[in-house]
Amino acid sequence: MGSNRLEAFSDGVLAIIITIMVLEMKVPHEPSLEALSALALVFLSYVLSFIYVGIYWNNHHHLLHACKTVNGRILWANLHLLFWLSLFPFVTGWMGENHFAPLPTALYALILLAAALAYWLLQQAIIATQGEASALRSAIGRDWKGKASPLLYLVAVAAAFYAVWLAQIIFALVALIWLVPDRRIERSMPQDA
Amino acid sequence: MGSNRLEAFSDGVLAIIITIMVLEMKVPHEPSLEALSALALVFLSYVLSFIYVGIYWNNHHHLLHACKTVNGRILWANLHLLFWLSLFPFVTGWMGENHFAPLPTALYALILLAAALAYWLLQQAIIATQGEASALRSAIGRDWKGKASPLLYLVAVAAAFYAVWLAQIIFALVALIWLVPDRRIERSMPQDA
Amino acid sequence: MGSNRLEAFSDGVLAIIITIMVLEMKVPHEPSLEALSALALVFLSYVLSFIYVGIYWNNHHHLLHACKTVNGRILWANLHLLFWLSLFPFVTGWMGENHFAPLPTALYALILLAAALAYWLLQQAIIATQGEASALRSAIGRDWKGKASPLLYLVAVAAAFYAVWLAQIIFALVALIWLVPDRRIERSMPQDA
Amino acid sequence: MGSNRLEAFSDGVLAIIITIMVLEMKVPHEPSLEALSALALVFLSYVLSFIYVGIYWNNHHHLLHACKTVNGRILWANLHLLFWLSLFPFVTGWMGENHFAPLPTALYALILLAAALAYWLLQQAIIATQGEASALRSAIGRDWKGKASPLLYLVAVAAAFYAVWLAQIIFALVALIWLVPDRRIERSMPQDA
Repeated sequence: MGSNRLEAFSDGVLAIIITIMVLEMKVPHEPSLEALSALALVFLSYVLSFIYVGIYWNNHHHLLHACKTVNGRILWANLHLLFWLSLFPFVTGWMGENHFAPLPTALYALILLAAALAYWLLQQAIIATQGEASALRSAIGRDWKGKASPLLYLVAVAAAFYAVWLAQIIFALVALIWLVPDRRIERSMPQDA
Repeated sequence: MGSNRLEAFSDGVLAIIITIMVLEMKVPHEPSLEALSALALVFLSYVLSFIYVGIYWNNHHHLLHACKTVNGRILWANLHLLFWLSLFPFVTGWMGENHFAPLPTALYALILLAAALAYWLLQQAIIATQGEASALRSAIGRDWKGKASPLLYLVAVAAAFYAVWLAQIIFALVALIWLVPDRRIERSMPQDA
Repeated sequence: MGSNRLEAFSDGVLAIIITIMVLEMKVPHEPSLEALSALALVFLSYVLSFIYVGIYWNNHHHLLHACKTVNGRILWANLHLLFWLSLFPFVTGWMGENHFAPLPTALYALILLAAALAYWLLQQAIIATQGEASALRSAIGRDWKGKASPLLYLVAVAAAFYAVWLAQIIFALVALIWLVPDRRIERSMPQDA
Repeated sequence: MGSNRLEAFSDGVLAIIITIMVLEMKVPHEPSLEALSALALVFLSYVLSFIYVGIYWNNHHHLLHACKTVNGRILWANLHLLFWLSLFPFVTGWMGENHFAPLPTALYALILLAAALAYWLLQQAIIATQGEASALRSAIGRDWKGKASPLLYLVAVAAAFYAVWLAQIIFALVALIWLVPDRRIERSMPQDA
């Protein structure tokens, strides 16, 4: 089994996740500015999650591109990642509708953490297939982004209960860190897109 | 007609099914732990169905991979399978929201049964096209998984009314059985993914 | 512009239409047989529409397969067809929820009629591109199915107000007529899927 | 990274946007003509947005077709465009449900404006990659459509508060201007679809 179908299926799921998130932003029944501004925080959380899914889509592509053959472990590691990402619309809606209250914010951070760990597991599964001389392993190098993100999410989980604004800063910060496409992989991989 | 477009269309439908199921988990309006824990069983049923659709996606891929040409019978057998799978979001939501009550649990088992039979019909349709020396037929061998699952679902339908926990154990058990990718087909098929 | 991307986009839209239709079947809050049986007609209308979208997907594939190059007219004729098909979830839900009442049934027939005409326009657009010696034109021959369906839908529109059962019989009948894949095109087209 | 996966992902997102917009047209609970006609303006706004998304899909295809390699800037410019397009279902529903009231109409124009600017940014990003002798730059020529549209949307934003009908005429007018496929690119690009 090649990685093409895995990629196509993941693309489909990610495209749906990124699009149905907008459905949590319920159309108000009033044509007033008040009705619209009541949605401001729902909108903000939507923007945040849109960027996160965009980052995952981008990095996921680079990851699968480095993966020539797919076995059962990779396949389920990938579905495991998609599972946590599929919860984004739910936690995004909950956090936005409740104006970034502590509990929803902590859950949002927790789902980000779970997705980051799932991504790491998928990466390990692909490296394991490639063996000692794994091109992906040397490409990601020390992987400081991949190691720092879960730690930052963990801080955000705790921060949500004491200083919600800190959790929010962390969300924005990690997004910024990853917004730069993963040039490490791009650079060291052979060009055969 | 090659099997590529059938695969792409099925992938699209499966990606949508697996993703819209999460919409049944309605975002609560309260930022409290009570509001969240009220969704625990809806979440659990979502996890279960996510795994089932993942299994179907995986096995469906192996099945179509064994199928080089598509005729009307295969095409409609495939749509028939997708039809039953499209009911997963409904039965998942009904079972979860009603805390695994007998009737919704029985219906869930019934839809699993219908999907399993539809899968078997699709398998037969592909084998019929390949004739006596069907590579797929020898690949699936005695197909004990394919034969045991419908029987177990049938038991679950009945068990739902007398001992709901038994039905739930069966759901988990069958998922576990299938979680292992179908190595039989993988092993005996020529490698031309 | 080749027909591949047109096909992929149409597949995506059709896959979404066929899957979100099920969302009109709202999950009942009660775990009772009454709650479930209240949905019987919604379910029936879902089955009907699922078959219709399946038929359109199937015939649409054969149609585009006969089309090598895409121009603006074909592109918009295709979007025009997708537009009417995108209304299926709405009319399906309306007809089902209102127990096949006259007006929703008539609207359902009207949308079927519009989709049939849009399909015919798309067919004409493709034939026009191929010129006098159009392979598609000779393939569809006298196209009695394509000509009879709109007439039958028109009868159903009128029948809905006087004898709803007649409209329903027509829906089932036309579905049966088309359920047989379009062998005419399959037979006369070169095999290069 | 080739443009194929970018195209496939964008196609998926556009297919979902164009289809879930119809979900804003809530199925009425009454089988009466009053219930249906209450949706007339929601339907009209749906038709308008369907045409706009169709235009974007069409032009987007021509744009990406002119783009052979994808870098980080193009990738994020594309996601940025998809972001604004993903808000179409929301603004379409808000404008339709509130009978083209001033504020929702102005917001609709604003989102059209944002999408137009995002499209222009994507175009610039692709041209920048191609360098001085950019085939795309010479293909779009003076790009009067691309320059006139944002200005017209800007007029519509203001007009919405003083003369809603003028904003509506502008929406229809710009759609008409773009309905003609972008022949400039089609003509000057090498035929290798």
